[in-house]
Amino acid sequence: MREIDPSDPILSPPLRIGHGFDLHRLEPGHKLIIGGLDIPHDRGCVAHSDGDVLLHCVTDAVLGALCLEDIGQLFPDNDPKWKGQASDLFMNEAMRLCDEMGYRVSNLDATIIAQRPKLSPHKETIRDNVAKLLKVDRRLVNIKAKTHEKVDSLGENRSIGCHCVVLLVKK
Amino acid sequence: MREIDPSDPILSPPLRIGHGFDLHRLEPGHKLIIGGLDIPHDRGCVAHSDGDVLLHCVTDAVLGALCLEDIGQLFPDNDPKWKGQASDLFMNEAMRLCDEMGYRVSNLDATIIAQRPKLSPHKETIRDNVAKLLKVDRRLVNIKAKTHEKVDSLGENRSIGCHCVVLLVKK
Amino acid sequence: MREIDPSDPILSPPLRIGHGFDLHRLEPGHKLIIGGLDIPHDRGCVAHSDGDVLLHCVTDAVLGALCLEDIGQLFPDNDPKWKGQASDLFMNEAMRLCDEMGYRVSNLDATIIAQRPKLSPHKETIRDNVAKLLKVDRRLVNIKAKTHEKVDSLGENRSIGCHCVVLLVKK
Ligand SMILES: [Zn+2]
Ligand SMILES: [Zn+2]
Ligand SMILES: [Zn+2]
Repeated sequence: MREIDPSDPILSPPLRIGHGFDLHRLEPGHKLIIGGLDIPHDRGCVAHSDGDVLLHCVTDAVLGALCLEDIGQLFPDNDPKWKGQASDLFMNEAMRLCDEMGYRVSNLDATIIAQRPKLSPHKETIRDNVAKLLKVDRRLVNIKAKTHEKVDSLGENRSIGCHCVVLLVKK
Repeated sequence: MREIDPSDPILSPPLRIGHGFDLHRLEPGHKLIIGGLDIPHDRGCVAHSDGDVLLHCVTDAVLGALCLEDIGQLFPDNDPKWKGQASDLFMNEAMRLCDEMGYRVSNLDATIIAQRPKLSPHKETIRDNVAKLLKVDRRLVNIKAKTHEKVDSLGENRSIGCHCVVLLVKK
Repeated sequence: MREIDPSDPILSPPLRIGHGFDLHRLEPGHKLIIGGLDIPHDRGCVAHSDGDVLLHCVTDAVLGALCLEDIGQLFPDNDPKWKGQASDLFMNEAMRLCDEMGYRVSNLDATIIAQRPKLSPHKETIRDNVAKLLKVDRRLVNIKAKTHEKVDSLGENRSIGCHCVVLLVKK
């Protein structure tokens, strides 16, 4: 990263946009961790790490906006070091790189897709957790949830997905 | 919202990004309403409201950019008040909040995903409707359509989906 | 496009956001072309053109940000002229229109979704190709890849998808 001169208005633009997507299979006997919160459900995410679909999605959007290696490259899922790893570590590393490149989060909007459980009771706690990890005020972070209307794996409680967009701004 | 000082450059940034996603099941015996337009098809959206996948998606993107409650929280689908409701009401409320927070739409780009019917003959009418609801010139609104190549519920005419991104700018 | 006065700050905003989505069915006996690169795999994309899911997605995001006709309208898949067409032609036309409207790419972030093959060995070559087509430095282009955790057509090696977001800036 250090190869970029931060005063170059093209290589170090005032704003950067990022997109994240993540999906995990849901199976009985696993925990469901979303935004660092352990949410009661009849099943949870099959994953090498803690399977936090929201934090993985947000991490990839930040790394993507910065045009850096993605979460799968920085934290390979065949590396025993990341087995069962809480995903805030991935977020912290993305934010460290963001800071190092001279950017901060302007705002973030994420959409979690899951047929069940209802996420609205947990939304504000999740939002606080994500805002803290992104080092911004919670009023610049939005987490919404949608069902998948009972179709496909997302609608049949067999998977959980997330999309998000982020806007980074030069500090 | 009023708790945010509009002159605070961090809590009230010059630009805000939003992402929307929506999906509805398609079944015979229902209307297919997209962007307020009643489109002839062998089936339509199963929904509590009029099931307008595009207006729901756009509404959630605007609310998401503003970091406000989402469409499902503002207009719960178990509230008889919204039964069969035309979705321009949801858009109008999102735009009222947008205006109140001091923002307007800079541009919006939406992608409707449906195997059938062909949406290109209706695209310009839909675009005009959405632009009017967003209170911007139609040349700042883009609606495109993709098939899902016959796979999954979207490709088998069993559902219709939409993704969009929006950029809001301070007035 | 020429109807827009480039000095109008509303119709010709300093920044424009775009979203792209594309998906192709994977079947044996076809080539798998991603970002202009021919990638060895047991199957490839069923398509009228070369089926380059990434270039189609990026092209649609650029056209979408500019609020122009989409790839399916500019290059109809029932026109024999585009049969087997290499997709850099679509990108070049989108970038010609982008230049004509007075914009350049600020940054782009794309997410390819495929269960197999592993795309990481090809990522940097693909990135170089896309950057060249977008006429920007490779450090402003990001390509990441995700699996679909073995569920739905994307997870069963029956399709390949792509989402991307782009930020355009006035020249
Ligand atoms: Zn994940
Ligand atoms: Zn809806
Ligand atoms: Zn395509």
